[in-house]
Amino acid sequence: MEFGYMNKWLKINLTLGEFKDFSISEDILRKFIGGKGIAIHLLWKYITKLEEKGINVMEFDALSPENMLIFATGPVTGTRSPNSGRHHVMAMKSPLTGSIGSGNSGGRWGAKLKFAGYDGIVVIGKAENPVYISIIDGIVEIHDATKLWGMNSIETSTELRKKHDKKRAGVSCIGPAGENLIPMAVIMNEEHRAAGRTGLGAVMGSKNLKAIIVEGERKPIIAQQDKFDIKVKEHVEKLKENGVTGTGLPTYGTAVLVNIINQNGMLPTNNWQTVVNPEAEKISGETLTEEYLINKHPCWGCVVACGRKSKVDKGNYKTTYTEGPEYESIWALGGSTSMNNMGAVIRANHYCDILGMDPISIGSTIAAAMELNEKGMIPEEDLQGIDLRFGNADAVVELTWMAAFRQGFGFWIGEGSRKMCQHYGAPDLSMEVKGLEMPAYDPRGAKGIGLNYATGNRGGCHVTGYTIAAEILGDVDRFTTDGKAELTKIFQDFTSLVNSSVNCLFLTFALGLDEYAEMIGPITGWEVDSDELLTTGERITNLERMIINKMGITGKDDTLPKRLLEEQMPEGPSAGQTVDLATMKEEYYKLRGWVDGIPSEEKVIELGLK
Amino acid sequence: MEFGYMNKWLKINLTLGEFKDFSISEDILRKFIGGKGIAIHLLWKYITKLEEKGINVMEFDALSPENMLIFATGPVTGTRSPNSGRHHVMAMKSPLTGSIGSGNSGGRWGAKLKFAGYDGIVVIGKAENPVYISIIDGIVEIHDATKLWGMNSIETSTELRKKHDKKRAGVSCIGPAGENLIPMAVIMNEEHRAAGRTGLGAVMGSKNLKAIIVEGERKPIIAQQDKFDIKVKEHVEKLKENGVTGTGLPTYGTAVLVNIINQNGMLPTNNWQTVVNPEAEKISGETLTEEYLINKHPCWGCVVACGRKSKVDKGNYKTTYTEGPEYESIWALGGSTSMNNMGAVIRANHYCDILGMDPISIGSTIAAAMELNEKGMIPEEDLQGIDLRFGNADAVVELTWMAAFRQGFGFWIGEGSRKMCQHYGAPDLSMEVKGLEMPAYDPRGAKGIGLNYATGNRGGCHVTGYTIAAEILGDVDRFTTDGKAELTKIFQDFTSLVNSSVNCLFLTFALGLDEYAEMIGPITGWEVDSDELLTTGERITNLERMIINKMGITGKDDTLPKRLLEEQMPEGPSAGQTVDLATMKEEYYKLRGWVDGIPSEEKVIELGLK
Repeated sequence: MEFGYMNKWLKINLTLGEFKDFSISEDILRKFIGGKGIAIHLLWKYITKLEEKGINVMEFDALSPENMLIFATGPVTGTRSPNSGRHHVMAMKSPLTGSIGSGNSGGRWGAKLKFAGYDGIVVIGKAENPVYISIIDGIVEIHDATKLWGMNSIETSTELRKKHDKKRAGVSCIGPAGENLIPMAVIMNEEHRAAGRTGLGAVMGSKNLKAIIVEGERKPIIAQQDKFDIKVKEHVEKLKENGVTGTGLPTYGTAVLVNIINQNGMLPTNNWQTVVNPEAEKISGETLTEEYLINKHPCWGCVVACGRKSKVDKGNYKTTYTEGPEYESIWALGGSTSMNNMGAVIRANHYCDILGMDPISIGSTIAAAMELNEKGMIPEEDLQGIDLRFGNADAVVELTWMAAFRQGFGFWIGEGSRKMCQHYGAPDLSMEVKGLEMPAYDPRGAKGIGLNYATGNRGGCHVTGYTIAAEILGDVDRFTTDGKAELTKIFQDFTSLVNSSVNCLFLTFALGLDEYAEMIGPITGWEVDSDELLTTGERITNLERMIINKMGITGKDDTLPKRLLEEQMPEGPSAGQTVDLATMKEEYYKLRGWVDGIPSEEKVIELGLK
Repeated sequence: MEFGYMNKWLKINLTLGEFKDFSISEDILRKFIGGKGIAIHLLWKYITKLEEKGINVMEFDALSPENMLIFATGPVTGTRSPNSGRHHVMAMKSPLTGSIGSGNSGGRWGAKLKFAGYDGIVVIGKAENPVYISIIDGIVEIHDATKLWGMNSIETSTELRKKHDKKRAGVSCIGPAGENLIPMAVIMNEEHRAAGRTGLGAVMGSKNLKAIIVEGERKPIIAQQDKFDIKVKEHVEKLKENGVTGTGLPTYGTAVLVNIINQNGMLPTNNWQTVVNPEAEKISGETLTEEYLINKHPCWGCVVACGRKSKVDKGNYKTTYTEGPEYESIWALGGSTSMNNMGAVIRANHYCDILGMDPISIGSTIAAAMELNEKGMIPEEDLQGIDLRFGNADAVVELTWMAAFRQGFGFWIGEGSRKMCQHYGAPDLSMEVKGLEMPAYDPRGAKGIGLNYATGNRGGCHVTGYTIAAEILGDVDRFTTDGKAELTKIFQDFTSLVNSSVNCLFLTFALGLDEYAEMIGPITGWEVDSDELLTTGERITNLERMIINKMGITGKDDTLPKRLLEEQMPEGPSAGQTVDLATMKEEYYKLRGWVDGIPSEEKVIELGLK
């Protein structure tokens, strides 16, 4: 396959210190596209191999050298198609959830990996001592990283760019949290961008792999350059004209959602005990823009520029420079914990960035700890002096760094809300699905997102089926359950395609399946249409589901925390609502061709996954 | 020697995992008493042995397994003589200063070591994996400490007491800072008490020694019990009657000094650029008592109870429970950095306690960094977003934990002000002597303490010759240099005796050499008088000096930062003053019988040190 792809993947065995190139057949590429899709294909093959060896993947330890970590780009990555600097990272097993590991990152690393000559990297094994990998103009090397160990993401990136004399190189790395094998550690790139969920950083740390630096001059060849150029122009135009991608996100960043979601009575507060945050304005995108913004910082090739460079120059937590925070981080660190202090949010988010941790999981777990504490379930000596009341900004900031180093009560924060709430005897206070802390939309106010949380393969997640685009930002009735199964299915499958393309999910506010066909077609030379692409997305979603079934995840895990199913929303515009999950789930399984969360044989055959 | 001592010392070689008991002859005990004196005697013998092997102790690495670490009590420790729960810790070499390592700690560990059956412990070598030592009722064991590694001082102490089922056992341990070999790491005991200066925690960490737990029922035998009992009563009475030990320290803790020293125009502010802190009241002992005190927490056997249990229940940095802060910590973290925020001071001090770091060195180094930053000498990228302005409380709190983990700019804080200021090209901004950051009294306002800082064996230190007791709390003219050489010499030698006894230096506000003779005499059965004891103190001071001479420390190092010698105090009650060190030093050397900072042969012979 000479178009769109570099047609070269790298497989590294860190135990042996060996690496080799391999390529993927056009048939498989068309079936799985790239990015997440190809990673899932490779993971499935690997699991099959492990099972043949008699290894039980359900009991498999996520931090064992045998875990597989994959960095992947797709045909769109690194092209002039807008917002195509991203990459996808997957692990066979997540140390946080015990199921599949998956994260998607902005920045420029994805594009740079392609320019270095590779579509993706598959890592297995564990180096004896810390190492990093350089891939520069097609040359792969494994280097000693003893001196980098302990460095944070800023230092690691700066040091490697200096050492290789490549100022604009992409560096993906772990911070101390990944080294310390914290289950919610992330893989950072470009200092402030993360493959952020399911603990991929700990998997990288368990391999003694500190960083991967990539740089090069190679460019993917476009099959139909003229047609592609025309479509790029059209797509850019559509993005500029769209209210969300042309105005909302550029102006206020993702934090534009704080006020919108709060006004809809859906901003989880006090660990989801309520959803009305009277002080949300203080942590809104508007406030961020007026009082904390330095300027925008777009990813490679981005025409939206939701990224923020920020500072805190008054009140507490003065900070001269950092990036973010995003909507999810603001909510998790500041909203769910009810502290509404933007300076503290920025500082805690900065710690997450430099130490390499997922702010959604950190913030949500702190909020859960605050509710445990409110209910008197944490012995005072466990807190070592921390005042763990809702609204205490300092506790959030303190526990964030403590989690990265397993210090004091930070130990439990780093373990995630599921393990923590189980330990303290209140599993129902853990607001997660499949072990992954849920993001910032209470599904009692938008039923589709509830179905998506419940059925999302990697756990409680908004970016595998963002029905909010239709239910809150669009015209779909948010309270009804009617039609939400279909909505969720389409969003999930479309998202699988986007994350396999690989470019930015935010494009989908303005661009639909037709436009994705207009990108992928001219790039690859394939005659693809929206139907094929949606089926491709469905295939990827299903194969991922087949992998998590192997990990023991079935229909029983496609659920929501009891609070969302049984406790009526106490106040605000969504008052009185709960999530009638059972009805939606039944319809969803029927549409999916799944039985108790498991793809039926017919569906497997239909999608060519037999 | 059957009285006062347990007459048993433990020598542990961690490389070999071997230990043996040894005893010390009565002749040596009488010459060096115990504690610091005996430790210095043992270090001198060890250095002689190393030199015979051809090892150059001047170039010796403080973190090498060959460094010797000594925990020592004296004849008074563990008796009913007041305030005798303390112990002294020494290392042949300090990782912070490159000279001798020395620290004295409160708590109960010293008394408990004696009750366990030992006067002291000598540690050499390095364990292959983390270990801890238990000494319980005379039984010594070395245990695996892999699971303790990473734990902070509270967790380590709690865990070990639980494991050995000894609720009141003494636990000396290192926190993460010691494990991470931070040059200003301390050895903690009883969670909030520290052998705090010259980086002893890093020496312990370099040996892979996490903790020593001690407990037992043995008691030192008193030679003349009746006489001793009478003197104990008299001494307690004198302590109660004394204004400092009977009223000031019990009521306000050591922080009583904040207002006193500030009113004398001696409280270093903005890294010693001035000494007038208009907001000192906010961080005073009075404020601590009124707004943050829970109650007092005396050391074992203490009748003064300067120790504080504290909390922060309003404003920032809410904390439900911690201990301290002491005057020095308050000044270093809050005064020298001009942040005057007691909540932040308490939090930063708490981090020092749980992570195991010296708040004087941490705070002073941060203050020096703030001046470097003020003068534009730190490149912005080195700060990684930290707003390093004088007065920024958050920067102090943040850099404190960052120092323990070598994170970001915390790396330079952990290295100490000397290395940091050299690195940034402004060595004169480092307010230390011999590499040890000076404490909270500007000697331009009390000349004697300046001479003591300059000539102190371990570096810039107040607790080796606290002339402040005479110059500020007593009647001696603080500005004159006349008589300060003799004053300093006497204070230094007396202090050497106190730290060899071993009990609390605060006794000396109320008790003099005669009273020390009244303790040591009845305990040991020796006929000692104040002259003998002062000579003993002189002997110890001189042998310590002979050790630091071996490390390359001579007259050139008996100096003060240029600022104190040349810059007139700009304002306040000490305005216009500098320290005329040369005059005092000449007189001091003459009194000491030293030439260029080196004891003369005559003096060595006179003291029986040949």
